[in-house]
Amino acid sequence: MTDPLEETPVRIVIPLFQGFTALDAVGPYEVLSRLPDAQLRFAATETGPVRADTGVLAITADARLVDVDSCDVLVVPGGPGTRRLMHDPELTGWIRRVHESTQWTTSVCTGSLLLGGAGLLQGLEATTHWSATELLESFGARYVTERVVVQGKVVTGAGVSAGIDMALSLAELIAGEGVAKAIQLAIEYDPQPPFDCGSVAKAGPALVDLIRTVLSDTPDARADTRAGPPRRPAPRPR
Amino acid sequence: MTDPLEETPVRIVIPLFQGFTALDAVGPYEVLSRLPDAQLRFAATETGPVRADTGVLAITADARLVDVDSCDVLVVPGGPGTRRLMHDPELTGWIRRVHESTQWTTSVCTGSLLLGGAGLLQGLEATTHWSATELLESFGARYVTERVVVQGKVVTGAGVSAGIDMALSLAELIAGEGVAKAIQLAIEYDPQPPFDCGSVAKAGPALVDLIRTVLSDTPDARADTRAGPPRRPAPRPR
Repeated sequence: MTDPLEETPVRIVIPLFQGFTALDAVGPYEVLSRLPDAQLRFAATETGPVRADTGVLAITADARLVDVDSCDVLVVPGGPGTRRLMHDPELTGWIRRVHESTQWTTSVCTGSLLLGGAGLLQGLEATTHWSATELLESFGARYVTERVVVQGKVVTGAGVSAGIDMALSLAELIAGEGVAKAIQLAIEYDPQPPFDCGSVAKAGPALVDLIRTVLSDTPDARADTRAGPPRRPAPRPR
Repeated sequence: MTDPLEETPVRIVIPLFQGFTALDAVGPYEVLSRLPDAQLRFAATETGPVRADTGVLAITADARLVDVDSCDVLVVPGGPGTRRLMHDPELTGWIRRVHESTQWTTSVCTGSLLLGGAGLLQGLEATTHWSATELLESFGARYVTERVVVQGKVVTGAGVSAGIDMALSLAELIAGEGVAKAIQLAIEYDPQPPFDCGSVAKAGPALVDLIRTVLSDTPDARADTRAGPPRRPAPRPR
């Protein structure tokens, strides 16, 4: 007997890997875990804590990648680890296989490079962190300066914090405007950034060049994660 | 010999507890960990993974609260667990003791209730998640509908996602406008919410009442964490 009111779970999987950027994963998690009947899991090569790029945060993976062969929504976070993993056959092969089962295959920030490495962006418009646009295009995608890009079932978001916007857009696509609005109010997402400099166009060339210089001096490709300016003493208030 | 160019570390501590809301903690983490010479630690009663309110995410605490007796920046996240812990002498006593050493004592969302329970908000203006304003005022604070409220060294942020705005404001106070702007660009924080409904004023009474109804039906006080509308089938696209 099937209960007509029984809910169909929305199976969401977020893969984790060494060197992911935490907010890339946690922004969408915080939105999508509030969907009615969300079943969200973090997965990694092995279960247990997975360290993010900074080394000071770890999120627990409760599932192994090899034990996940399908899901409804795949959310691939970015981070400096993607530079190494975008050619890793284990992770990109897993993404390619799971993608066959998804309703939505999504990325945040340089998670797009993993979708690219899996061959999923060929011929599509896509977005990524502003520092990774050329790499993105090396996978046959056409970079567009949108915050969220929907191409069929493939949805890409811009850098780091854009995962919140991407996930709210996705929540609307999955569960409708009413649910998406309720989630936005629940997380009180009425952003008021202190500066108007969150994109390359708004930041202006001087700030962008400063960060690009820092990035090019960073041998371990912490490109999109530790992009602060050169070290200087932090003046203490009070 | 003291090297005049030697950096002074900025010691940042984020306490975790059962039932915290992940984005409350990870938003500020993602910003503040990029400060020059940030030394950020997650702390909890015991080291190891601490489950967030949803049960499907855990962040690892690398330090025990009893081993942390001072820091420069304290960031207290919120979550439904605060309803229970705001009267817990162990956690509120720890916050009160560490507060004596801080440059900045901050909260996100209902983390303010823990500051209140520690007696730190008496007579101050403060903010919190929109669903917890009366509780906040029960601790002698005056709720104001600002996204970020600075009162001396006590800084409170509004609900969940406001932690990003709070932390960027804090980054400016700690390290100056240039550093704060660089961090904002690094995390590509150019928010484009899909709806204009992220605050009580903007959402309008119907949406607010809907969520309040859901909250009042929720016995385990998941108030500010699972505030979606009543369950309904999630239509699948495609």
